[in-house]
Amino acid sequence: MPPNERRYVLTLGCPDRTGIVARIASFLAERGGWIIEAGYHTDPDTGWFFTRQEVRADSLPFGVDELRERFAEVADQLDERTEWHVSDTGRRRRVVILVSKEGHCLHDLLGRVGSGELDVDLRAVIGNHPHLGPITEAHGIPFHHVPFPSSKDPQGKQDAFARIGELVEAQDPDAIVLARFMQVLPPELCRAWQGRALNIHHSFLPSFAGARPYHQAYQRGVKLVGATCHYVTADLDAGPIIEQDVTRVDHTDSVPDMVRKGRDIEKIVLARGLRAHVEDRVLVHDQRTVIF
Amino acid sequence: MPPNERRYVLTLGCPDRTGIVARIASFLAERGGWIIEAGYHTDPDTGWFFTRQEVRADSLPFGVDELRERFAEVADQLDERTEWHVSDTGRRRRVVILVSKEGHCLHDLLGRVGSGELDVDLRAVIGNHPHLGPITEAHGIPFHHVPFPSSKDPQGKQDAFARIGELVEAQDPDAIVLARFMQVLPPELCRAWQGRALNIHHSFLPSFAGARPYHQAYQRGVKLVGATCHYVTADLDAGPIIEQDVTRVDHTDSVPDMVRKGRDIEKIVLARGLRAHVEDRVLVHDQRTVIF
Amino acid sequence: MPPNERRYVLTLGCPDRTGIVARIASFLAERGGWIIEAGYHTDPDTGWFFTRQEVRADSLPFGVDELRERFAEVADQLDERTEWHVSDTGRRRRVVILVSKEGHCLHDLLGRVGSGELDVDLRAVIGNHPHLGPITEAHGIPFHHVPFPSSKDPQGKQDAFARIGELVEAQDPDAIVLARFMQVLPPELCRAWQGRALNIHHSFLPSFAGARPYHQAYQRGVKLVGATCHYVTADLDAGPIIEQDVTRVDHTDSVPDMVRKGRDIEKIVLARGLRAHVEDRVLVHDQRTVIF
Amino acid sequence: MPPNERRYVLTLGCPDRTGIVARIASFLAERGGWIIEAGYHTDPDTGWFFTRQEVRADSLPFGVDELRERFAEVADQLDERTEWHVSDTGRRRRVVILVSKEGHCLHDLLGRVGSGELDVDLRAVIGNHPHLGPITEAHGIPFHHVPFPSSKDPQGKQDAFARIGELVEAQDPDAIVLARFMQVLPPELCRAWQGRALNIHHSFLPSFAGARPYHQAYQRGVKLVGATCHYVTADLDAGPIIEQDVTRVDHTDSVPDMVRKGRDIEKIVLARGLRAHVEDRVLVHDQRTVIF
Repeated sequence: MPPNERRYVLTLGCPDRTGIVARIASFLAERGGWIIEAGYHTDPDTGWFFTRQEVRADSLPFGVDELRERFAEVADQLDERTEWHVSDTGRRRRVVILVSKEGHCLHDLLGRVGSGELDVDLRAVIGNHPHLGPITEAHGIPFHHVPFPSSKDPQGKQDAFARIGELVEAQDPDAIVLARFMQVLPPELCRAWQGRALNIHHSFLPSFAGARPYHQAYQRGVKLVGATCHYVTADLDAGPIIEQDVTRVDHTDSVPDMVRKGRDIEKIVLARGLRAHVEDRVLVHDQRTVIF
Repeated sequence: MPPNERRYVLTLGCPDRTGIVARIASFLAERGGWIIEAGYHTDPDTGWFFTRQEVRADSLPFGVDELRERFAEVADQLDERTEWHVSDTGRRRRVVILVSKEGHCLHDLLGRVGSGELDVDLRAVIGNHPHLGPITEAHGIPFHHVPFPSSKDPQGKQDAFARIGELVEAQDPDAIVLARFMQVLPPELCRAWQGRALNIHHSFLPSFAGARPYHQAYQRGVKLVGATCHYVTADLDAGPIIEQDVTRVDHTDSVPDMVRKGRDIEKIVLARGLRAHVEDRVLVHDQRTVIF
Repeated sequence: MPPNERRYVLTLGCPDRTGIVARIASFLAERGGWIIEAGYHTDPDTGWFFTRQEVRADSLPFGVDELRERFAEVADQLDERTEWHVSDTGRRRRVVILVSKEGHCLHDLLGRVGSGELDVDLRAVIGNHPHLGPITEAHGIPFHHVPFPSSKDPQGKQDAFARIGELVEAQDPDAIVLARFMQVLPPELCRAWQGRALNIHHSFLPSFAGARPYHQAYQRGVKLVGATCHYVTADLDAGPIIEQDVTRVDHTDSVPDMVRKGRDIEKIVLARGLRAHVEDRVLVHDQRTVIF
Repeated sequence: MPPNERRYVLTLGCPDRTGIVARIASFLAERGGWIIEAGYHTDPDTGWFFTRQEVRADSLPFGVDELRERFAEVADQLDERTEWHVSDTGRRRRVVILVSKEGHCLHDLLGRVGSGELDVDLRAVIGNHPHLGPITEAHGIPFHHVPFPSSKDPQGKQDAFARIGELVEAQDPDAIVLARFMQVLPPELCRAWQGRALNIHHSFLPSFAGARPYHQAYQRGVKLVGATCHYVTADLDAGPIIEQDVTRVDHTDSVPDMVRKGRDIEKIVLARGLRAHVEDRVLVHDQRTVIF
């Protein structure tokens, strides 16, 4: 079967108890649902159950709207705290990217989208510097330049964020990617974009949160540097972690060397995190993530 | 819940079709079965379905024998080619280890068993050299020395293998671990131990099968060396792979350096492979493994 | 000191004997040479000595040509088999890239060159398919389309390679990068480009040389897939290895998943290998490389 | 040449300036010194120069004492702040290990010493629990049990540390290894053992310093756990880092799973760190380490 065969993706979290798997699986089986991929997990600490299931769209006798309608009854019976979601791989996810000066993550994502490896609807790139515009537009993606004032102009900064908020919302995105966007989001954008905004932080969190993490890493003399893709929350660099990785450094690596080596990890970690997000593989519970 | 709470472990493989998950899950749910951990996988190439489920023993109203009896009906209905197995974590797995001169894998396994990390019933260690006997016995494990003749004495070698075969079978082991046992098993032992004998090969297979893999790796100038844990089959170093890992080397590493660095990978890869095996996490199909 | 301060880079290989380091270091010290970075290695098997030294250009009282002239005397005194090279970081290295259909390595290199991370003079990209032309040209790099005939037209293929040979030589490149260029080079190009042509092979060599390595890896059931950057020689996929790396896969990864995960390794391994090459960090001896 | 051929190891750190390499290399060359391995590094931030050189003992016309005497003149001429050290691989390093309850690092080190992989003179193991005594003694190593009182008895604790101090000093060790010794050393022992005491901390520092790092890691939802080998200083878990590594975890890993996976990293990181230390490969400057 081709990997891009249309599927419905069901994700669900609820308090664990006997019979959940049977209930969901029977619901699907009775309607002919052909499960392509299924993941289950129970967190023994919280007693919370998680599942993600991919069902061939053409195996069911109805469409995604009716699937949602009918599944709602199953979910309600499981527990009143059940959180669930059904999505349709036939609809490509809308993505907006925010950048500052550093282009390596943007270059990488443009390459992945351009080559078809990352099958998303990249709607726009927004930068607070203009120089990444031409290459973005060469890939056929609109670029918006929203200049940021100096830090001594709080009103100007507020206006810039308001403008960004409008540009983002106009695309109704499934994912807002902070691809080394070096501005701290205001609380209202953190709230508005909750669960949709992904940041790449250039350290292995929780080490070296905040500014200049490679400098911090150098000072501490660590033997590995890393990167972290996490959901943005109002707490800086403290949101639920989606993906992390590291690479080895040694005493011959200056800070610029660490920056360069770290970039390769940033690119990969962000790409993996974004892929997991747009494929509905990330379930968040209590600040921790389950990645199916 | 404590991790060593008694569980029944069901593994199953059969041709994929709609409703398998529902059938198994319903069978368990109707009898109160509390699923602790569940893995599902369908191989799109072969159309084969695999599952592994851990059920709390005390959640079912009957014991493991009755579980097997009742589940047999379910399995038969799924497909005549269904292969399944139910095991009981209340019975510790019996393990026998074969060694030659090099002791690093044996030291490592003895340490894991001694500290309780690897909860198996280590019945015996058999060595074709005597010097690892004292440390084995210091851990309270019987050691059998079966000397091997020179390669010019095929009858003596055959006798030695016959003796090893008897010593192994006397323990009725769930796992026979070739912990850098440098003798090629005769076909009759490969057959008798099929699916139970695990080897650690000191290369990242299929590179550098056969003798002196670190020397081969050095000559080829590779930048990583590795190790492979696989099931023993009559084809040397070609059995289904359970686990592999690698570590970085560079031009400053001589063959002895590669040997030393490689040992750490061998130990870890063998320990991971053995753990997966004794926890019934390895399902083999068409020379490939599914590791739940 | 800024990392792009101009330096002269001396590399040398010769039979090891007492006093080589002293001879070279004294030569430099007597002329005020300030060594920024120095690597030394002796291979105990071959008895061969290797060194690479970076000297601040402005610390010497003469230019690179006179440095070469004067150092020739030192080198001659060491051993008649001495091989040495002095380069000048003030001259950016000329690079030509060859591609076929798959664009991920090209996208990656263009991004690195465009962002200034890889400071080379990228002269041209040559492709046997036209579709990577526009994005190459958007980066300001000339693209040449040299179509290849079907395999039933050996003369046409020979002509195409002759055309590529001309286009490459016109740039007098320091590096010719086969960035997933899927055609096997004819012996005359292997010879002409010896020590300058770098290939990225999409497996952890020597495993899975030749065609469709990810399919081979899938069939064998390996638990890691990798990539290898090596110098091109007349023996397919057997040239000296510059860099390798791997990434983990498991039973849930189909061949397309392996291809996707492998691409990230290919990009990084190729970029690391190319960087080492253009910084004169790679010394080849007896099919093995020393990477300073 | 056999790797255990006797060598003299020179390590040196001083302010960088032109001619240091030439001065040292000429000193050795003029006396026939055959350099087996040499490492050089200059830290551009601090302007500090580091070197480590291994010289064949039989290539010099005098012994280690005279080498020290003669080299002192060279060192004095370089800079008054020069720190240097000459050691003799003919003298095996004396090591003492401190343990608490967890035995995995001790088992691992005993195995390495027993198999000859780690060629040190393991003088004693000191434990604040008795149960690791028998296996230690089975390896032929003396074990000292120094029980610790409850935390409500500061005098008893002080007495216990005094006793440990005596036992350690009686061996005049080159390395004191805290192999998961869970007691915080008092300042006087930190001072007395400065530069000789190595700790293994079960996290990727600076993340999760202090108590129960795996629990902290689990709560934060990180995707990798690690271990750090560092010199002990009066600042808890803040000493210069010698070696670090990590391993991947995911949502299926409970805290006990993280503990188990982390142990394998702890063992390897500690063994690598100890090897580097006893081979005089670690130079410390400004809280950062150079590892040759």
